[in-house]
Amino acid sequence: MHEPTDALAAPRFTGIRTFARLPHLPEIDGADAAIFGMPWDGGTSFRSGARFGPEAIRSASALLRPYNPAQRQMVFGHLSCVDAGDAPTVPGYIEETLTRIEAYAAGIIAQGAVPIGLGGDHSVALAELRAVAKQHGPVAYVQVDAHHDLWDSYNGKPYNHGTFAKRAIEEGLIDPARSFQGGQRGSLYGPEDYEVAAELGIELVPWLDLRSWTPEHFGEHIRDRVGDAPLFLSFDIDFVDPGLCPGTGTPEIGGPTGEQALDLVRALRGVNLVGADVVEVAPQYDSPGQHTALMAANVVYELLTLLAIAKA
Amino acid sequence: MHEPTDALAAPRFTGIRTFARLPHLPEIDGADAAIFGMPWDGGTSFRSGARFGPEAIRSASALLRPYNPAQRQMVFGHLSCVDAGDAPTVPGYIEETLTRIEAYAAGIIAQGAVPIGLGGDHSVALAELRAVAKQHGPVAYVQVDAHHDLWDSYNGKPYNHGTFAKRAIEEGLIDPARSFQGGQRGSLYGPEDYEVAAELGIELVPWLDLRSWTPEHFGEHIRDRVGDAPLFLSFDIDFVDPGLCPGTGTPEIGGPTGEQALDLVRALRGVNLVGADVVEVAPQYDSPGQHTALMAANVVYELLTLLAIAKA
Amino acid sequence: MHEPTDALAAPRFTGIRTFARLPHLPEIDGADAAIFGMPWDGGTSFRSGARFGPEAIRSASALLRPYNPAQRQMVFGHLSCVDAGDAPTVPGYIEETLTRIEAYAAGIIAQGAVPIGLGGDHSVALAELRAVAKQHGPVAYVQVDAHHDLWDSYNGKPYNHGTFAKRAIEEGLIDPARSFQGGQRGSLYGPEDYEVAAELGIELVPWLDLRSWTPEHFGEHIRDRVGDAPLFLSFDIDFVDPGLCPGTGTPEIGGPTGEQALDLVRALRGVNLVGADVVEVAPQYDSPGQHTALMAANVVYELLTLLAIAKA
Amino acid sequence: MHEPTDALAAPRFTGIRTFARLPHLPEIDGADAAIFGMPWDGGTSFRSGARFGPEAIRSASALLRPYNPAQRQMVFGHLSCVDAGDAPTVPGYIEETLTRIEAYAAGIIAQGAVPIGLGGDHSVALAELRAVAKQHGPVAYVQVDAHHDLWDSYNGKPYNHGTFAKRAIEEGLIDPARSFQGGQRGSLYGPEDYEVAAELGIELVPWLDLRSWTPEHFGEHIRDRVGDAPLFLSFDIDFVDPGLCPGTGTPEIGGPTGEQALDLVRALRGVNLVGADVVEVAPQYDSPGQHTALMAANVVYELLTLLAIAKA
Amino acid sequence: MHEPTDALAAPRFTGIRTFARLPHLPEIDGADAAIFGMPWDGGTSFRSGARFGPEAIRSASALLRPYNPAQRQMVFGHLSCVDAGDAPTVPGYIEETLTRIEAYAAGIIAQGAVPIGLGGDHSVALAELRAVAKQHGPVAYVQVDAHHDLWDSYNGKPYNHGTFAKRAIEEGLIDPARSFQGGQRGSLYGPEDYEVAAELGIELVPWLDLRSWTPEHFGEHIRDRVGDAPLFLSFDIDFVDPGLCPGTGTPEIGGPTGEQALDLVRALRGVNLVGADVVEVAPQYDSPGQHTALMAANVVYELLTLLAIAKA
Amino acid sequence: MHEPTDALAAPRFTGIRTFARLPHLPEIDGADAAIFGMPWDGGTSFRSGARFGPEAIRSASALLRPYNPAQRQMVFGHLSCVDAGDAPTVPGYIEETLTRIEAYAAGIIAQGAVPIGLGGDHSVALAELRAVAKQHGPVAYVQVDAHHDLWDSYNGKPYNHGTFAKRAIEEGLIDPARSFQGGQRGSLYGPEDYEVAAELGIELVPWLDLRSWTPEHFGEHIRDRVGDAPLFLSFDIDFVDPGLCPGTGTPEIGGPTGEQALDLVRALRGVNLVGADVVEVAPQYDSPGQHTALMAANVVYELLTLLAIAKA
Repeated sequence: MHEPTDALAAPRFTGIRTFARLPHLPEIDGADAAIFGMPWDGGTSFRSGARFGPEAIRSASALLRPYNPAQRQMVFGHLSCVDAGDAPTVPGYIEETLTRIEAYAAGIIAQGAVPIGLGGDHSVALAELRAVAKQHGPVAYVQVDAHHDLWDSYNGKPYNHGTFAKRAIEEGLIDPARSFQGGQRGSLYGPEDYEVAAELGIELVPWLDLRSWTPEHFGEHIRDRVGDAPLFLSFDIDFVDPGLCPGTGTPEIGGPTGEQALDLVRALRGVNLVGADVVEVAPQYDSPGQHTALMAANVVYELLTLLAIAKA
Repeated sequence: MHEPTDALAAPRFTGIRTFARLPHLPEIDGADAAIFGMPWDGGTSFRSGARFGPEAIRSASALLRPYNPAQRQMVFGHLSCVDAGDAPTVPGYIEETLTRIEAYAAGIIAQGAVPIGLGGDHSVALAELRAVAKQHGPVAYVQVDAHHDLWDSYNGKPYNHGTFAKRAIEEGLIDPARSFQGGQRGSLYGPEDYEVAAELGIELVPWLDLRSWTPEHFGEHIRDRVGDAPLFLSFDIDFVDPGLCPGTGTPEIGGPTGEQALDLVRALRGVNLVGADVVEVAPQYDSPGQHTALMAANVVYELLTLLAIAKA
Repeated sequence: MHEPTDALAAPRFTGIRTFARLPHLPEIDGADAAIFGMPWDGGTSFRSGARFGPEAIRSASALLRPYNPAQRQMVFGHLSCVDAGDAPTVPGYIEETLTRIEAYAAGIIAQGAVPIGLGGDHSVALAELRAVAKQHGPVAYVQVDAHHDLWDSYNGKPYNHGTFAKRAIEEGLIDPARSFQGGQRGSLYGPEDYEVAAELGIELVPWLDLRSWTPEHFGEHIRDRVGDAPLFLSFDIDFVDPGLCPGTGTPEIGGPTGEQALDLVRALRGVNLVGADVVEVAPQYDSPGQHTALMAANVVYELLTLLAIAKA
Repeated sequence: MHEPTDALAAPRFTGIRTFARLPHLPEIDGADAAIFGMPWDGGTSFRSGARFGPEAIRSASALLRPYNPAQRQMVFGHLSCVDAGDAPTVPGYIEETLTRIEAYAAGIIAQGAVPIGLGGDHSVALAELRAVAKQHGPVAYVQVDAHHDLWDSYNGKPYNHGTFAKRAIEEGLIDPARSFQGGQRGSLYGPEDYEVAAELGIELVPWLDLRSWTPEHFGEHIRDRVGDAPLFLSFDIDFVDPGLCPGTGTPEIGGPTGEQALDLVRALRGVNLVGADVVEVAPQYDSPGQHTALMAANVVYELLTLLAIAKA
Repeated sequence: MHEPTDALAAPRFTGIRTFARLPHLPEIDGADAAIFGMPWDGGTSFRSGARFGPEAIRSASALLRPYNPAQRQMVFGHLSCVDAGDAPTVPGYIEETLTRIEAYAAGIIAQGAVPIGLGGDHSVALAELRAVAKQHGPVAYVQVDAHHDLWDSYNGKPYNHGTFAKRAIEEGLIDPARSFQGGQRGSLYGPEDYEVAAELGIELVPWLDLRSWTPEHFGEHIRDRVGDAPLFLSFDIDFVDPGLCPGTGTPEIGGPTGEQALDLVRALRGVNLVGADVVEVAPQYDSPGQHTALMAANVVYELLTLLAIAKA
Repeated sequence: MHEPTDALAAPRFTGIRTFARLPHLPEIDGADAAIFGMPWDGGTSFRSGARFGPEAIRSASALLRPYNPAQRQMVFGHLSCVDAGDAPTVPGYIEETLTRIEAYAAGIIAQGAVPIGLGGDHSVALAELRAVAKQHGPVAYVQVDAHHDLWDSYNGKPYNHGTFAKRAIEEGLIDPARSFQGGQRGSLYGPEDYEVAAELGIELVPWLDLRSWTPEHFGEHIRDRVGDAPLFLSFDIDFVDPGLCPGTGTPEIGGPTGEQALDLVRALRGVNLVGADVVEVAPQYDSPGQHTALMAANVVYELLTLLAIAKA
């Protein structure tokens, strides 16, 4: 059982910065879940800096403790977790980088752990989905995000953080009929931008609709759509109101508070999570107190809690 | 038809920073709307820095795209828009500065475009109102703001960002009976501070009341009060909760989220907008991600959408 | 009658930074209320820096004006207030520091003023409570806070910002049966963490429950529980959503907005306030506009308003 | 004898922020020197914010101690000093502001203290010089600064931080034949910019020449030029390399280090100082550790040391 | 003759942010020199963010004036200059990006202007050199930089900001025998790292040697080595001490001050400059006053001065 | 042989942040040198925050490479090094904290490695010296620092960052006759402050004298004084000019550049180093690019180089 250093015995500002002060074990060693970083920002269309997202999330995660009172569930101690370090990346070469991240995630999966990725810009999700689909076949996919990332290309090129979800559907990595995107908002290129989701078969609920859903309704809706399919959940930190979580590359006005977003994740009790990530944390744009990174750490914590509940 | 550079062809972080990457055309050239800056902070009573507001708003506005899904309306491409550059200002000389800004705004109006000003501290609105009233006579006036700016003087002098609205009424630039102020909050000098609005004939709805209005109610209320009169809308960024939009000079705790504020602007479909501004953006106090400037850019975008709807 | 410099006569960015630009009178001189600083951060378990909290709150408090429209109450001018300076502290020596702060607060109380402390990490509240209890006996105690601070020890030591409330009960400084803690959230060490409150006899309402209370319900509930007992109110700034108030040492995702938190304080009209504090402001982690310090200044202002109402 | 709080008895981060923790005594009370603020930035041609310069310098000055080892001179304890608070200013009205600052400085002089001003943009020096010249007649004047501030007008107006020195000569406040400007650098409007100094009769030594002077040579040169005339010394913080002191409004690459600049001030032992200032500190642009404000506090400390030496 | 807006007529904080407030003319229109941006950071090995370098340099360049007193030379007004906007880039695709930048630079050269590039990470220099060499054949090349950028590959890939100079030699774009690298410092991979320069035939003078050279010696040495060959000069901002210019991606302790670095550029009077750049400005890491961007703007100004001298 | 991850194989922004990306091995495992953190700021007299110094230094140290060209010495690969994690600390309890740090350092020494500590405020050096002296007896001691830290007490208490060096002499941990302090500057409490060094028998060379020493002279002088005694070297980062290294708690104007400071450390070739530290890094006050932390990482690197030379 791998678990964090006890904060009542060693202050939380001490020790090497792994996620939640978990042991750093790239070889996984029987863990149920492995958190790993994807330090990459070559696929971002506006502000870069997300390559330092994993470092920032790890630093902020020192504040986490073992028990989740919102879910009445022990997380650490109950679920064996490790920090598996960072996947390799190559600045300037997005296609090669995706290949290397895929291999790294596949290695974690091969060791039997659920991979929880720390981004990095959202293009990395394509690599994770390739690794997950190789193991599980086309997966159910839930993405909360201010953008749908279903655009076709940017500047004439196919891979980046605004196109990866379309690529994932085209590559057969996800099953659109069991998949869902929510939280989209902000200006678009044209009215056809949201129509593409329907054409691709994936459900898209923009934020202006989603904001009236209760967490309970969200949970039920997702469970209905996903069923018992293996699920990959992708949490783009820009889903949260950037006034609260400013440390991200392509912010859009509006969105849930951090608390509301955590409520939505908590409502997913019962899904069959086989992989997840939290992406687009760009610490150079974060508040001095790194609230965005702290939020991302808490999202990971709620994801781990879902795994802990499933294991319980 | 003047419209922005296409972000799918040239990344949004490229190019000279005009508003929304529109062409910089001080001569207007037939545009429907002209965004212009008023780099001035000599009228502010606490934190200066708003002279760099126009630069910051332009920089953040690179994130805007042509279609507004909240209003189901094409904006750019449908409405011809330009960035008309900055009005001239003279540090230290508020009266001369107001004269120069007025002339600049009058020039835009004379070319047939609706002027949309980027502040600058709120005292600049007096100059805009003088220009607009010269063309249209006393206008309807809607101001959302944490302050009413109806004080009589500061330190013995008549012109600054806390007195301009009273001056505008005294000068006959606005028609109080068709005007409205909303969002006021925070401590005051005395109970008489809000009573002055009634004395001057302008409707004032403090935030503690306004916060329970739905956007629909707000829209109907304003349309009732304003009627089909030419309307000038002034959006003080400190209307928004300064925890979310910290980049401003005289913050007051509370207020709407950015999303709630945009909803209110969107609810004004149908008004006869002849001028508008977004003021009090002080980027030195903004979050590292310049969320305040981004919010201001989005308010301008919603104002342009109102014009686009009217044109449609 | 001690009151602030008039902002209409001297700009708010002028003058020595005392709280609200009140006179600096360590000797109190008949004031009804005395604001004083407790510059100490030796008891914090994560991010230090709160020793500069009093300076930051004083700086931000220049924005306050005499009349509180939310309570329809004159504050300054009606209530005589002073800034009593800072209590002495000794870096590295928490027990000696608590002794010195206690003596300083006791001196204020002996002069007949209600002490309003500016923190400083939360461990300072133990010193204040010792001073208040010496005068009034065990007091009613209301704490709004993301944490309950009822842990038993940290790293084997009894005094710090996470244990002071347990110490205060053990020392008989507060009457648990008339006391209340609200707002707790975030991960815990185990399910027993919240149970300790019941064991100690103090009521604890976690944020996930408290968030559905109206201010009116909160006010009634507290008045019922506290009765007419002398009340000490401790406001930990981390009660507020750290996305809005990031300048604090141990942030937890979620919590009320600043406006909601002020509403709760305002709802306490009628209590018998004999002391209060606002703690855990760490300006190094605050937004560039120091919104956290501004919020803290407004909380103090609402506390003064409660005193003003009681005097009226 | 007015002197600061002892840092060995009360930590330097405690107490109300007056200069060096001196008593705040606007009425002077027999002090030899009175430090006062001039919170004004309406005369700046680029970045505003210097209105918060006095606050920042006071905050940083908590680090000062009584003895100056570089000059082997006790300062505090030997010289009676007070913090006289801030001169009044009126945002937006430079001419009125200069009148009010002049009256404030004249009041200090009338009480027999040497006024040491904290800026504020450099235009305030005109007000100080008017007050000093009223008492002493045309004074010797030494200005170290990246700019000469001898331009004739900006945007058609006579008063601002780039023209005040020419105004001072024109008004007969300073005796050019006993005056000196050093440190000027950066791009100019044309070759005539530096020739104007000769035409006005004031000596100007640009930084590219001054940088090869030793402090000893500088001291002798100034003493030769100034003689025993009453001297006003104006230290523009932008004299120092803005890489080291970034918190200023119109930085120019190059200049001395802080240490070199202090050496130059120290070399002025023996002059007859009747007034001085340190200006152009804009804390919004300063390093997080507020090094610019700390430098300014140290310059004031060296100025006080010159007075202490003269008194010894 | 294209020249900047006059700062004595319109304040420097007004107007659209082009370089030095020059006209934005992508079509060049007969200009002698064209400043253009290369917003790209996909080739950086540590901290990203240089894609916003051009924006930051343009913003800071508002402080420039027409006359260079250090060289006694009018620059603007004498030399016709334009801001040619930004070259296109494609995030994630370094090879495609280099192709697009090359085409953009070639377009400027074809119009007869000397291209002055604003980076962007240093990999962009390969694109510029390809464009310049296409016109002029292998050019003389001078690079001042904390690194030599002669490494062979990173993470198995050939193109990035640490390998471009080796690629440029291999592609025959520069003539090593007429080329020079100076300023290298910091830790290396092994003793062979500096030997590779000799093997490639380019002269390399590490900073620990270069720091004892006078500007005059530097100028003579370069003129001797370069002769009258067409020269491309590449100024990596990390050449300057990162304590002074922190806004860069791979800082190395030490290096010249900004003033010393400008002296070196000034000493190059007489060279035959056919192209130049200033690279590696990453504004997210810059001081709040953006000193790094200001330094970069001044380097460009000195480069323009060299062109102005050559034209005179 | 423990050495860092190869940056040519894995980008420097990847991986868990240990010092220089060394393996994290608290058990040392035969290493020649062990870097360890001392996250403590309870002993600081002004700005706190140094508890995050070790994290910041580790993060910045990712930029280090194996070969030191200034010393022509391989460091990593030649010297086996590990990151031994952090010593335990207890906020609020300085005496207990010193005991725990001493035990941690003693553990490293017992394993045969040279301990290199990352501070933390300077009070931690007392703990290290106790551990070192237990092994070696009274050691030679060299401290470069803006302060001598020989004061007797603060606020009536004996242990803090300004008194530890006196305590170390009193406890017989260092041999004053073989010890040296250099770099002291800034204002003092009185002329006796520097005389205490002579009384205690330790050599003190203030910065105003030291600044004229060449590195060679410094090296010879230290070697003469220290001889072949086991040496502990303490490098307070505030020795460096705080304009360049602002991230520290009690800055004093002036001091060497980072480059000059590294030259001094390099000049110590030949000493018998048995322990060392770099202290007082407070990242909250550092430049956005964390130059202070980068400087500290380079000082550690030079210390390791001295060990590597001794091993060679």
